[in-house]
Amino acid sequence: MTSSATGGLFSGMFARGGATPEVSDAAWLAAMLDVEAALAAAQAAIGLVPAEVAPALEDACRPELFDIAELGHGAARSGNPVIPLVAALRERVTPELRRFVHYGATSQDINDTASMLIARRALVPILADLSACADACARLAGEHRGTVMAGRTVLQHAVPVTFGLKAAGWMSALDRSRAGLSEVRLPVQYGGAAGTLSVLGDRGHEVTPLLASRLELSEPVIPWHTDRTPVAELACALGTASGTLGKIATDVKLLAQTEVGEVAEPTAPGRGNSSAMPHKRNPVGAMSVLACVQRVPGLVASVLGGMLQEHERATGPWQAEWETLGELLRLTGSAASWLREVLEGLTVDAARMRANLDATRGLMMAEHVVTRLGGTPQARKLVDAACARAADGRLTLREVLLADPGVDLTPEEIDAALDPASYLGSALTFVDRALDVHPNTPRS
Amino acid sequence: MTSSATGGLFSGMFARGGATPEVSDAAWLAAMLDVEAALAAAQAAIGLVPAEVAPALEDACRPELFDIAELGHGAARSGNPVIPLVAALRERVTPELRRFVHYGATSQDINDTASMLIARRALVPILADLSACADACARLAGEHRGTVMAGRTVLQHAVPVTFGLKAAGWMSALDRSRAGLSEVRLPVQYGGAAGTLSVLGDRGHEVTPLLASRLELSEPVIPWHTDRTPVAELACALGTASGTLGKIATDVKLLAQTEVGEVAEPTAPGRGNSSAMPHKRNPVGAMSVLACVQRVPGLVASVLGGMLQEHERATGPWQAEWETLGELLRLTGSAASWLREVLEGLTVDAARMRANLDATRGLMMAEHVVTRLGGTPQARKLVDAACARAADGRLTLREVLLADPGVDLTPEEIDAALDPASYLGSALTFVDRALDVHPNTPRS
Amino acid sequence: MTSSATGGLFSGMFARGGATPEVSDAAWLAAMLDVEAALAAAQAAIGLVPAEVAPALEDACRPELFDIAELGHGAARSGNPVIPLVAALRERVTPELRRFVHYGATSQDINDTASMLIARRALVPILADLSACADACARLAGEHRGTVMAGRTVLQHAVPVTFGLKAAGWMSALDRSRAGLSEVRLPVQYGGAAGTLSVLGDRGHEVTPLLASRLELSEPVIPWHTDRTPVAELACALGTASGTLGKIATDVKLLAQTEVGEVAEPTAPGRGNSSAMPHKRNPVGAMSVLACVQRVPGLVASVLGGMLQEHERATGPWQAEWETLGELLRLTGSAASWLREVLEGLTVDAARMRANLDATRGLMMAEHVVTRLGGTPQARKLVDAACARAADGRLTLREVLLADPGVDLTPEEIDAALDPASYLGSALTFVDRALDVHPNTPRS
Amino acid sequence: MTSSATGGLFSGMFARGGATPEVSDAAWLAAMLDVEAALAAAQAAIGLVPAEVAPALEDACRPELFDIAELGHGAARSGNPVIPLVAALRERVTPELRRFVHYGATSQDINDTASMLIARRALVPILADLSACADACARLAGEHRGTVMAGRTVLQHAVPVTFGLKAAGWMSALDRSRAGLSEVRLPVQYGGAAGTLSVLGDRGHEVTPLLASRLELSEPVIPWHTDRTPVAELACALGTASGTLGKIATDVKLLAQTEVGEVAEPTAPGRGNSSAMPHKRNPVGAMSVLACVQRVPGLVASVLGGMLQEHERATGPWQAEWETLGELLRLTGSAASWLREVLEGLTVDAARMRANLDATRGLMMAEHVVTRLGGTPQARKLVDAACARAADGRLTLREVLLADPGVDLTPEEIDAALDPASYLGSALTFVDRALDVHPNTPRS
Repeated sequence: MTSSATGGLFSGMFARGGATPEVSDAAWLAAMLDVEAALAAAQAAIGLVPAEVAPALEDACRPELFDIAELGHGAARSGNPVIPLVAALRERVTPELRRFVHYGATSQDINDTASMLIARRALVPILADLSACADACARLAGEHRGTVMAGRTVLQHAVPVTFGLKAAGWMSALDRSRAGLSEVRLPVQYGGAAGTLSVLGDRGHEVTPLLASRLELSEPVIPWHTDRTPVAELACALGTASGTLGKIATDVKLLAQTEVGEVAEPTAPGRGNSSAMPHKRNPVGAMSVLACVQRVPGLVASVLGGMLQEHERATGPWQAEWETLGELLRLTGSAASWLREVLEGLTVDAARMRANLDATRGLMMAEHVVTRLGGTPQARKLVDAACARAADGRLTLREVLLADPGVDLTPEEIDAALDPASYLGSALTFVDRALDVHPNTPRS
Repeated sequence: MTSSATGGLFSGMFARGGATPEVSDAAWLAAMLDVEAALAAAQAAIGLVPAEVAPALEDACRPELFDIAELGHGAARSGNPVIPLVAALRERVTPELRRFVHYGATSQDINDTASMLIARRALVPILADLSACADACARLAGEHRGTVMAGRTVLQHAVPVTFGLKAAGWMSALDRSRAGLSEVRLPVQYGGAAGTLSVLGDRGHEVTPLLASRLELSEPVIPWHTDRTPVAELACALGTASGTLGKIATDVKLLAQTEVGEVAEPTAPGRGNSSAMPHKRNPVGAMSVLACVQRVPGLVASVLGGMLQEHERATGPWQAEWETLGELLRLTGSAASWLREVLEGLTVDAARMRANLDATRGLMMAEHVVTRLGGTPQARKLVDAACARAADGRLTLREVLLADPGVDLTPEEIDAALDPASYLGSALTFVDRALDVHPNTPRS
Repeated sequence: MTSSATGGLFSGMFARGGATPEVSDAAWLAAMLDVEAALAAAQAAIGLVPAEVAPALEDACRPELFDIAELGHGAARSGNPVIPLVAALRERVTPELRRFVHYGATSQDINDTASMLIARRALVPILADLSACADACARLAGEHRGTVMAGRTVLQHAVPVTFGLKAAGWMSALDRSRAGLSEVRLPVQYGGAAGTLSVLGDRGHEVTPLLASRLELSEPVIPWHTDRTPVAELACALGTASGTLGKIATDVKLLAQTEVGEVAEPTAPGRGNSSAMPHKRNPVGAMSVLACVQRVPGLVASVLGGMLQEHERATGPWQAEWETLGELLRLTGSAASWLREVLEGLTVDAARMRANLDATRGLMMAEHVVTRLGGTPQARKLVDAACARAADGRLTLREVLLADPGVDLTPEEIDAALDPASYLGSALTFVDRALDVHPNTPRS
Repeated sequence: MTSSATGGLFSGMFARGGATPEVSDAAWLAAMLDVEAALAAAQAAIGLVPAEVAPALEDACRPELFDIAELGHGAARSGNPVIPLVAALRERVTPELRRFVHYGATSQDINDTASMLIARRALVPILADLSACADACARLAGEHRGTVMAGRTVLQHAVPVTFGLKAAGWMSALDRSRAGLSEVRLPVQYGGAAGTLSVLGDRGHEVTPLLASRLELSEPVIPWHTDRTPVAELACALGTASGTLGKIATDVKLLAQTEVGEVAEPTAPGRGNSSAMPHKRNPVGAMSVLACVQRVPGLVASVLGGMLQEHERATGPWQAEWETLGELLRLTGSAASWLREVLEGLTVDAARMRANLDATRGLMMAEHVVTRLGGTPQARKLVDAACARAADGRLTLREVLLADPGVDLTPEEIDAALDPASYLGSALTFVDRALDVHPNTPRS
């Protein structure tokens, strides 16, 4: 149920990219079996179980030998899928080895460790797509370092920026989100029935580092069964990354509006067409990113709210994490994959950017003219009046200023003051600096 | 992706009961086809399309003729599954009828109406399970109308209640939640590309009531494409019902604690067993209810947050509803189905209830003794002192009171004051009154 | 802490309108005292307490006699503010009446009933502002019934609509949200220590209807202490109303963009100005609505998640409702008040609407031309080709069609096909119908 | 409105500890003024403004010179409190210096940097309280390293653990949550109207590191106005810490139940008393922690959902952060302060722990007996049968085993097998190891 992977009616939108197969039921089954096999191997390595248990388990722990629907049926009775899995696994070894299957472990050990394994595997494509998104932004930032466009605050033209600066801001947020996600620790879980590993005498704790090393997970200080900080931190990092993806998609969506038209998503046959309206080119990619990330904060809240887990195993909140974590990985991954396509194929219309900038007839440069006039209160008053005239009528600010005897600037000075490219402040420095710290900036 | 219905690793816990198949991809496909067929029939009925369109569509709109994976693939390109569905549907009618397929409609019309249809269908088993839960509570309330037990506030013994009163409270909440859910209006959506039904000239609005009537949905005043109150109200009613289910499961979980042991879930082979601990009997049902409902508030928040839909169709928040609504129906339905099993088979241990009540050695009756002593400040002071002695030592409150010369009550009066059954206030009246208004109370 | 009412740094944005004072600490104190006084009066009316208790309490229950900070201090020790309030209240009556203060009640009775009272009072201005918003929409819908503008789906021009239709959609959503909110039942709570009213013998239940009637609240079937459906339903209705307010603010925000410019918020000295940019006119109202409603879904989720309340009183989730409910009322009320100002003073630029419609050089009418050419596949192919030429070059669709020998339409027919007003479908009917069912539509 | 600090009706519960004053309106005002003064000083240091601007601003930026209510009034008109603050600030310097007040800055620069400053200041007491909580756990872990108690999974007795192990688990989660919170980067924000610092020519970027250093905040690569990862990461770390606090409070609440009675909260006059029930001792501290943290996940979701900020400044989601961030700091801080009191004064009843362990008549040791009998299937079958007899009747498992001829163990061996202290596995090692890595473990 964690997701039907591919092939669903809505999976093109919500299950795109490489994370989805890593959170499928098949992936869960494989991860659980990997944990059981690694546990046997770790225990055999230090003589806690007979040496032959390790190869026996390795042989038995092949996903194709198990029936997911049957395990799911058993899970409903027992409360988790590990109990029927262990029963089935025991059938696959010789009677004398049976007691060493799942030795000293409890269901939560297997389920939690498998969930960390799934996270590790699903993060590979997610991190790759986030990197690719950031690299695409780096390219856009470099190419459009000086492409002027309107800076917009509360959806109103403010002062000029460059598209390179905007892209560098996207890149910087992506780099940060990617770093946060890649730093999440993913610990192995091994505590037995209630966190003491009682079945293993006093040697249980020796198993944990071996298990961690075999599964490429981190080693916790003590069993963390009802300390859900690892899951919470993972959920939060996915939530933050999703928010970053959504911020960029929001900008793309707005820039692609019919009335703005400064960027367009990549085209492909059938992509973004409307059945009813032949003239439309819908921003399907940004839309899909936004559809995915709209669903993420609620899932993060669900994980955080579920941290209140009772004693040594919770009655509900723990189990609620299983599918939720899969959804978080799937939706963040799908959003990253969609945004990658959008950014790698984004069409940027520099001419339209310039035209939109000019549409307010120079008003965006008013602040700059005030500065060139000395920045005094009188200068501001004079420019405010000029703006008012330009805003009301059909004149540009340039025309008003040229006609105003109080403006003590030559036409060349006026043109310079009204040139957006002359009023970019530290924009280009910021672009360069952001590119400098981006991991994959192409160097010439 | 809305759910792999049955057969998943976690579906026994999260996809139990009758709602799950009603939110599957197959159910979505069927609902979408039902809408297209009903649309054609409604339009044919008033002569907007040729009469033969209706039977042609009825014949073409059979789910088995379509491939969900292929539609999903097309949905990824176009942004929703209706566009490829309509294309495939047009292939199934004669060329001259093609333009009347999906006539005057936009994708959102089909998708939204299908979602309301899915809700209507999924609510049938959910409402039935909620009713059955409430009926089980009614039976418990009747049977245990006078079974005394500890009333517990902030998890401390307070004053006596009866288990019947507790069950009546559960029933009352279930009845209310069920009523709220059954009252949610589920309107048809039909507005064309942007809510004007422009393709149909000035007759489009005549189609809506016919469509509503054919699909047994309500008729909206005007197209509601970006007015998401119907979806929000549905999500909220599911959220409220889930909360009620979770409240009851919380009580069951707490009453079933090893140290409390006042109720036990029904037994079945393999149900609630622990792989490691033979003596355990886990409350798998309450746990599953709680696992399901833990996930619901975040989904409701996602729907509410997604109401901010732009202009005549949203870029993301609308699409985010599709799977979310399915999850809400699935999880609420699964929780209701689990709780029904728990309540219908609940074992109630009246003796243990009484024993737990007595474990505080009469202290719970202190308030009553104060009342019997006249309710004056002096009476309270006297009883407080008696309680302190009973709490400290090994004496019961009865023994302390009997030995206290300041207590002006006969032993019989003391026994009466300490009898929980004598201190139930209006409890039995409340039980009777709640049963009176419960729709299905068995009448003798 | 529920809110510092007015006078805060951010209260202009988040605490606007009439709801804020109704959720202040002072309002809570007043409501709690109202409940205590009404309880005494109800009990005196049926002889459960001496007749003089009623006037004594009425006299003592004056908010100015109590110190909020001191009560808050006591609340921290005892877990709720009612315990210190009752202690202080008892000081204000003669010793012999003290035991009849808060008679048979528990803290939760007072707190819950007070919260319902607060909700009833805060809903008055909220419902009034929602009504005023809807009335403003009704006026806009009437005035701009036929004002053509671009219908926009996924932020792309789709087909023409009218601004009246958009306003009618807003109005319809507001009417629905208002109705949902006004229908929420607000029951009195009276159950005593654990829901049995044990202190009152078997007559406690007689008090409830009298209490409900005095406080103008509804009467529950049985005490609802840990059945939180009333609070959940209230939170949900506020959440739905907030979503509707946010949808409208989203449209206003987008229509007010520099590049769109179809509406503008009302002006006032200092309103929406930028400190740095003299030319800007910020949509402060829509922004404030959106800032308020952004915070609501999380609060609703918090209430729904908090429904899992243990036994006869919860340890945390109940207490968590107090401030949350106040925030929900405050933020929804503030958003409603802001939107009212926006809608009542909204400037609509019909000329700009028409200009934006024409900016795509007729492409929005393509679907209509297809219809006028018979709606056949050939017609679509022909129009698609014409659109492609118009989209590429500098020609309008009209010019392309006139020049195309395959187009079998007279220039007059082409003009008619390209006239947005001729392609409004049922838009005007929908406007009229929505106005018909709006409660306050001005009738001539 | 961000909080009325202290003195409210509910502030004892929700505004406890040192964080609340740091998020008050007064603290916001002070932080904003600190930013304006530091900005002037940084600019003066590199000659961007006249040297005398720095002392002039330092003199003017005293909170007592400003009226919060008046600023709030102005904020409502302009959309944020910085605009009226800057206007008032300019009044406090000589006319010729006015243009250098807030030089090159935009409102968001001040507001965002102030919010980071507030976070830095509020985190001091929060981190201190988290440390103290962890230290209290360390003490409990040391003192009760070997105190046996029932391990409980899904609220059923599982196998023995020690209270020291439980406390070590709490400590470990607290240490991790504290580390996560202390690692959150808090960057200064300085970008001017749209992120270019255009007013400062090409030298604006030189100001940022100086500003960061003066305010003890980190320096961002580029202005982060609509990249909200810093706020999201802060919110998430608070959410994770809250979840940890809530987990511990959940355990305390459950252990303090009347029927369990293994721990009790510290007593103080009036603390946790019930107005109606003299015998009750309510877990007011755990309850308050749980009330606070119940509200946190929804706030985190609100911040994450609000990351979708448009272009160079958002219309709503940004503004929504202000009070939300304050609430997150206040509630997490209040919960930490409450839990500190609970843990520092926690009464642990080792005898009751042992008595509860024995209440299941030895059944918890069944797994151990199986192990001692060789761990074979026959051993399990034999022990299962013995358990069934012990569970049914009144016999202990010891009595059944002694009487069973099939059990090949001496009475001494049976006693050893049934001794909880002999079945603790690696529990003590885990305690020691956790204490080893805890920063403040007292060393002898």
